[in-house]
Amino acid sequence: MPVYNFSAGPAALPGAVLARIGEELGDWQGRGVSVMEVSHRSREFVQLADRSEKRLRRLLKVPDKYAVLFMQGGATGQFAAVPLNISQPGEIADFIVSGYWGEKAVAQSRCYLDPNVIADGREHDYRRLPECTPESVDGDAAYVHYTPNETIGGVEYRDVPEVGGVPLVADYSSSLLSEPVDVSRFGVIYAGAQKNIGPAGLTVVIVSDELLGRARAETPSVMNYTMLASAKSMANTPPTFAWYAADLVFEWLEAEGGLDVIGAQNARKAALLYNTIDRSDLYHNPVWPAHRSRMNVPFLLTSPKLENEFLVGAESAGLRYLKGHRSVGGMRASLYNAVPLAAVEALVEYMREFERRA
Amino acid sequence: MPVYNFSAGPAALPGAVLARIGEELGDWQGRGVSVMEVSHRSREFVQLADRSEKRLRRLLKVPDKYAVLFMQGGATGQFAAVPLNISQPGEIADFIVSGYWGEKAVAQSRCYLDPNVIADGREHDYRRLPECTPESVDGDAAYVHYTPNETIGGVEYRDVPEVGGVPLVADYSSSLLSEPVDVSRFGVIYAGAQKNIGPAGLTVVIVSDELLGRARAETPSVMNYTMLASAKSMANTPPTFAWYAADLVFEWLEAEGGLDVIGAQNARKAALLYNTIDRSDLYHNPVWPAHRSRMNVPFLLTSPKLENEFLVGAESAGLRYLKGHRSVGGMRASLYNAVPLAAVEALVEYMREFERRA
Repeated sequence: MPVYNFSAGPAALPGAVLARIGEELGDWQGRGVSVMEVSHRSREFVQLADRSEKRLRRLLKVPDKYAVLFMQGGATGQFAAVPLNISQPGEIADFIVSGYWGEKAVAQSRCYLDPNVIADGREHDYRRLPECTPESVDGDAAYVHYTPNETIGGVEYRDVPEVGGVPLVADYSSSLLSEPVDVSRFGVIYAGAQKNIGPAGLTVVIVSDELLGRARAETPSVMNYTMLASAKSMANTPPTFAWYAADLVFEWLEAEGGLDVIGAQNARKAALLYNTIDRSDLYHNPVWPAHRSRMNVPFLLTSPKLENEFLVGAESAGLRYLKGHRSVGGMRASLYNAVPLAAVEALVEYMREFERRA
Repeated sequence: MPVYNFSAGPAALPGAVLARIGEELGDWQGRGVSVMEVSHRSREFVQLADRSEKRLRRLLKVPDKYAVLFMQGGATGQFAAVPLNISQPGEIADFIVSGYWGEKAVAQSRCYLDPNVIADGREHDYRRLPECTPESVDGDAAYVHYTPNETIGGVEYRDVPEVGGVPLVADYSSSLLSEPVDVSRFGVIYAGAQKNIGPAGLTVVIVSDELLGRARAETPSVMNYTMLASAKSMANTPPTFAWYAADLVFEWLEAEGGLDVIGAQNARKAALLYNTIDRSDLYHNPVWPAHRSRMNVPFLLTSPKLENEFLVGAESAGLRYLKGHRSVGGMRASLYNAVPLAAVEALVEYMREFERRA
């Protein structure tokens, strides 16, 4: 029986990537050692670093005037890194808050600047996206921050907010590489790897050259965009294995046909699951339809007492990690790039069968 | 022909650990998925986290009143994290500088406090360890920082410096777990994983409870010892694969007999190589004998023009990554735990043979 992995993160990797990791584990690049065992300054690894950056630039059509960084510390690290790198003490930054992660970004920014929440989905219990117009943006703000996809609430912006001339910063952790994106609209894009990029412990940052050279003196060097950009992300030892795996994921994405193809596939997967939910009497997704996430699909049972039975049965059917986030309960299916359509088909078949029996 | 890996870091992993990683790559804990693909909050991973901490505590006999943290960002991250966590602006910290990494620690500390170099090996070109007495320590210093083993210069303190009542902080990146250590002598021990612990991207921090609760407001949360201690290193997504591999390394160390056994083995390996160097006319190690590192053995050829030939021949003999650090040139053999005695035997045989032919 095949096993399908709906984990919200760290999440499924493409089967082809895992197979390649296995093949090369004892002998990478004919060196007789694992990629984990070589210096980041070895010729082979420097080539990998260079290749992976080129692949990511091709996939996302990153303009030349952006630096691409491979960092550590995840999105939570960036909650500090962004204000430290692109604002000065006492400045204001604007925040569009559409869920749990947006709240976290605001909270941590308070140690470095004066956050101003200009749009907040909390009044709709984060089941709708808050609206943001260029008029709501403070023209003096150092930046505007938002979270294109919220993994817990399951809401997603389908369009990039209009923020006038202020640099837009996006925590793209859970949806970068899931479809094409116009990088030129952003000042900074960051993403923890553990959804669509690779193993946890790597963080991709794409930052406009115009925002480099502004880091505060107290920015830890491992968080300093300017230093990392000039050192090609090797100011200190990078997380080499995670970077290697990300390079394999980029290679896989290109072989799959790039982000247009992947984006269409992700749309199909999400539509299949949402349609199944909407047509049933047992399952329920609370998010306003136009704001639903393609990546993370939370759903509840109208009979909550059946939840445990649902999850136990799913386990037996090879459907893993469907339990909802502890803060909201219920179920959640994450449909990142590496989750195949067959996984969603197996899930909806199980859901229909479970509903018939219920 | 066996391949032996003398990389200074990221460095060799135990063969048994790599084999286990390979075996479990597609199916970890009977879950049908890789350890890279599961949530850090899944039952299986939380068990791993708990188990690995217990193993590390047993190996190092860590007293209960110390927190053990699994972080990101390497030693370079800790160059900022230490002053942010255990000092206040305007305070002094004392530094014992015995090489390149000690210099780096001083430089980054300057953004957060007033560093005071109380012992400096630079006058001896870092070929001798600077001496430090309790009298040289400023009793008002927030802490005293030193580097027990310098990977580039190849010097190592065999005894813990006496610093009176001031908390002692050690960058143990390249020698933690290479022999027993009396943790109770330290305020903070930190170590990037990529020498003796596991893959790059993980950082182990052992910190006295007495030093918790002092972090500055501007400490990034991913660097905040107090927050990480109370969240069992899961305030945010940890580098799960590297942590998993470290757990396997700890298990391997226990199976090998623990740090007494490993320490004796490391002493034998280093003695064999240093004796070979000292008895030859071609090879030369510039470090004062009593201060030589057991982990990193730099050596030069009395005929520098033979260096390239030496390295090419070593490659053909399966002896990998012997080239010295770019800042000092020559050769360097790193003899971390995972480098077997057989590797050193093969190296000295090659060295003798090369000298005979030279």
